[in-house]
Amino acid sequence: MALFSGIEGALIDLDGTVFQGKELIEGTKEAISAIQKSGRRIVYLSNRGNHSRNAGLLKLREHGIDVEKEDIIFSSTVTARFIKKHYPHAQVWVLGNSGLIEEMEEHQVKLAKRPEDADFVVITLHDEINYSELNDAFRATSAGARIIATNSDKTYPDENGPAIDVAGFIGAIESATGQKTELVIGKPSCFMVEAALDQIGLEAEQCMVIGDSLGTDISMGNMQGMRTVLVLTGNTTSTMVDQAATRSKPDYVFQSLADLRGEL
Amino acid sequence: MALFSGIEGALIDLDGTVFQGKELIEGTKEAISAIQKSGRRIVYLSNRGNHSRNAGLLKLREHGIDVEKEDIIFSSTVTARFIKKHYPHAQVWVLGNSGLIEEMEEHQVKLAKRPEDADFVVITLHDEINYSELNDAFRATSAGARIIATNSDKTYPDENGPAIDVAGFIGAIESATGQKTELVIGKPSCFMVEAALDQIGLEAEQCMVIGDSLGTDISMGNMQGMRTVLVLTGNTTSTMVDQAATRSKPDYVFQSLADLRGEL
Repeated sequence: MALFSGIEGALIDLDGTVFQGKELIEGTKEAISAIQKSGRRIVYLSNRGNHSRNAGLLKLREHGIDVEKEDIIFSSTVTARFIKKHYPHAQVWVLGNSGLIEEMEEHQVKLAKRPEDADFVVITLHDEINYSELNDAFRATSAGARIIATNSDKTYPDENGPAIDVAGFIGAIESATGQKTELVIGKPSCFMVEAALDQIGLEAEQCMVIGDSLGTDISMGNMQGMRTVLVLTGNTTSTMVDQAATRSKPDYVFQSLADLRGEL
Repeated sequence: MALFSGIEGALIDLDGTVFQGKELIEGTKEAISAIQKSGRRIVYLSNRGNHSRNAGLLKLREHGIDVEKEDIIFSSTVTARFIKKHYPHAQVWVLGNSGLIEEMEEHQVKLAKRPEDADFVVITLHDEINYSELNDAFRATSAGARIIATNSDKTYPDENGPAIDVAGFIGAIESATGQKTELVIGKPSCFMVEAALDQIGLEAEQCMVIGDSLGTDISMGNMQGMRTVLVLTGNTTSTMVDQAATRSKPDYVFQSLADLRGEL
């Protein structure tokens, strides 16, 4: 049918699109399976910078989704690859959950032994942070390390409403040091979309983006010439879609990823 | 002699290295000519984002330096190339002197007709700015354009001392809109050094960086495995060299680029 005509692959967001918190959104497993059975390729593209692909793989498989590790791309993954490719000699200090450290190690990025040795501080969400870790990132930056952020999301939804996300940690280090972030890797950047297209092996025009965020998923897809599908299971309401600027207006809106099954 | 042994090319900074303001630093023309006669390639690599290569070419030639336009690389040049390559469909709004607009046009980057149509606001120094231009960049960013900066230098020296540079304009737009810059192109970034190496046609290890700034020229060269030469004709004193962290400590220090002539 029209939605999928000419489309050979899908870049699917995770939080708010496939999962709500730890739970799989009803019907998404079946929809993903139907997309796969139609012969189309899927890459999961998430702005999460505090998770590793190993953790993502485990979570998807636990929920019965058939996926290979290489087809999961987090902003942590792309950040690690960027540093390894463009700054192969650099030493890195991480401010974030262990998932980011795991991605750095998997990509052979050198981790500095002391904050003062770091060439870069890489900042992501750290939801188990303590003062000493925050201060280590401050020390590294004060000693001259440059700041890279996996993404710059301001909040993510938890059970009490919006919770402080990466932007809060960036703000803490920037405000205390007077230094500024020089690079943000996450969606809607070219770094994420190019990593996904590289993995999926298709041109942008052959791909569909499915996600719950206008400013990241849909903006990215529109700018790159992809077909864009917004689902209303995450942080966007129909009213927000109506009010969206042209650049972040989706081609299609569905209540849930589950509803895409009927379009195949 | 030792300084140049194994070196096939030089990346030479402009402001504070070849020029002080509008004046050529004494003896630099002869030193550059001697490097050229020794068979080594030269690329001029400058963080200036408000100049065009045409203006740079004119200035160098007026001072008797033999150079081709392709061997001059400003951060304005690299920013325009980055946008054209990674965001070919994007519309751009410029906050900066006309040199940046000229580079965008030369690289076929689409300039938005109205601030509200822009996908990106590109910020550089604008030393003839008026309120309306500042407000247009604010309008573009408020309407959802993402921020790219050619560089993030805080000050440059003029006849009254340090003068406000790109960081001031970035701060104005970030503070008024609550949006943050997602990409800074200038030295010491990989984007600048990769553009220079691409043009010079050599590996990093075959190249020398000659510049007056520890945090940009020398940090960049050290991180990429180049030989690094600091000259004291710009914004760095011997005391600052002594106090520099390892990552920004130059391999060699000379009073002036002119002194390199004796090392050939």
